[in-house]
Amino acid sequence: MFDLYWAEDGGVPPGDRGLAYGDGLFETIAIMGGRASLLGYHLDRLVRDAGRLAIPVARPELEAACTRALERYSGLYPSLNWVLKLTLTRGSGGRGYRPEPRMKPSLIVSHSAFPSVPGPEGVVADFSRVPLTVNPLLAGIKSLNRLEQVMAARELQGDVFEVLMSNRDGHVVEGTRTNLFMLFEDVWLTPPASTLAVAGVMRRYVLDRLRIAGHEFREMPLTLDTLLGGSCQGLWLSNSVVGVVPVRNLAGHDLPVDQRLATIVGSPARLD
Amino acid sequence: MFDLYWAEDGGVPPGDRGLAYGDGLFETIAIMGGRASLLGYHLDRLVRDAGRLAIPVARPELEAACTRALERYSGLYPSLNWVLKLTLTRGSGGRGYRPEPRMKPSLIVSHSAFPSVPGPEGVVADFSRVPLTVNPLLAGIKSLNRLEQVMAARELQGDVFEVLMSNRDGHVVEGTRTNLFMLFEDVWLTPPASTLAVAGVMRRYVLDRLRIAGHEFREMPLTLDTLLGGSCQGLWLSNSVVGVVPVRNLAGHDLPVDQRLATIVGSPARLD
Repeated sequence: MFDLYWAEDGGVPPGDRGLAYGDGLFETIAIMGGRASLLGYHLDRLVRDAGRLAIPVARPELEAACTRALERYSGLYPSLNWVLKLTLTRGSGGRGYRPEPRMKPSLIVSHSAFPSVPGPEGVVADFSRVPLTVNPLLAGIKSLNRLEQVMAARELQGDVFEVLMSNRDGHVVEGTRTNLFMLFEDVWLTPPASTLAVAGVMRRYVLDRLRIAGHEFREMPLTLDTLLGGSCQGLWLSNSVVGVVPVRNLAGHDLPVDQRLATIVGSPARLD
Repeated sequence: MFDLYWAEDGGVPPGDRGLAYGDGLFETIAIMGGRASLLGYHLDRLVRDAGRLAIPVARPELEAACTRALERYSGLYPSLNWVLKLTLTRGSGGRGYRPEPRMKPSLIVSHSAFPSVPGPEGVVADFSRVPLTVNPLLAGIKSLNRLEQVMAARELQGDVFEVLMSNRDGHVVEGTRTNLFMLFEDVWLTPPASTLAVAGVMRRYVLDRLRIAGHEFREMPLTLDTLLGGSCQGLWLSNSVVGVVPVRNLAGHDLPVDQRLATIVGSPARLD
């Protein structure tokens, strides 16, 4: 069980560990035509990663909260397209950083308008000056510790849609809010999950689609040479709200743009 | 200017970026005999590190908030010893991770009882299994991104007062809530600020005291060999609430214990 807070009602305790330490995690779910897109993937990740943080939560309860949120908020958006956010924290209590053994988590539910989604012509991206550091114990978890992404997102200016963050090994790992897919010598490449700050739900879905469609793909580190070396057949950004978006220009270098990945992934409105 | 929230009144907006992304920082200030210990050091750090995060805040306003907090809370603690916590966040707003250019920060003020402080006989410490990762851009900032420390603090069991976290280079960097000082061949050693997750206020104060007292000291990485190699003349943990605490046993190895550092630092009740 968790304490459920609707964001518009206020009232999250100021001592909540989500605020105090970023001790929690979140999901941002695209609601399209009144349906929660990739809901199974989102709940799978939330339950699994809450388990990695030892935050106890039962999937059926989360599912019920989503159902209630859809009832509560859908009327607010005539287009029936909006974004649902679930924030799950360890709750309030503990002695400093140390949690109590049995704490009651908090679930904070909020909503926002659907953002504008880039068209098939692709977007402009650049490299971030903010290095990405990933604790192996927390790799991939969409936790509330996102200060690196905030600092990198401050670099987004003008028509730059995303900045790509690199780790200490010189590998280009992910965007501030997107994962990366690249086509190289007809093989789909994406950085390994163990190196990611956030392992996106859309990344998981794309990998499943590539597998089902029989495409060759590989999880491997991406280097600058691979990205800009001339053999790059395309670079895509993925997240669960914008889907897959081709990059037409990376740090001043034009990249080939096509709709291959969008075709493989299919219409975001029909994702289960 | 910031929006001021007294924690006991509730009412921090659920959309605050401190909760959403850990987009903020905090100070934990020992109030001893009704006086804020090391207040100048705390305010210096908070203002400097807020600047590093581009969160605008003026020192006089923070000072005024502390004065009001002392008036408001001191009557609650007959001993006049308690702990004041200031949490400064970037406030509410922005598009996802990306903040708006001019946002109004939030300051959340709360209090708690003074914890029990270990005696001069020293404490037991162990090594954490949680690796420490420090983004060079955020090194030393007591930000709200503290999930690594939370996960490490879960290892605190029985009489283990602290666990020491190591980085990818194999250096022992800090405890979950303390910095480290070691005496080695009559030189005081402490890990360099650029490698720290949190550069404690008490660490700064101890370094100032060592300098003033004419002791030789060096900021350099600590290795397991140095700590457990037999030439270690003592290991101390520091933070602004417990002061400096000798470690009498580290991971089963007895270490020499004395009051040298406590004598150099002086009584925590008289720290300015």
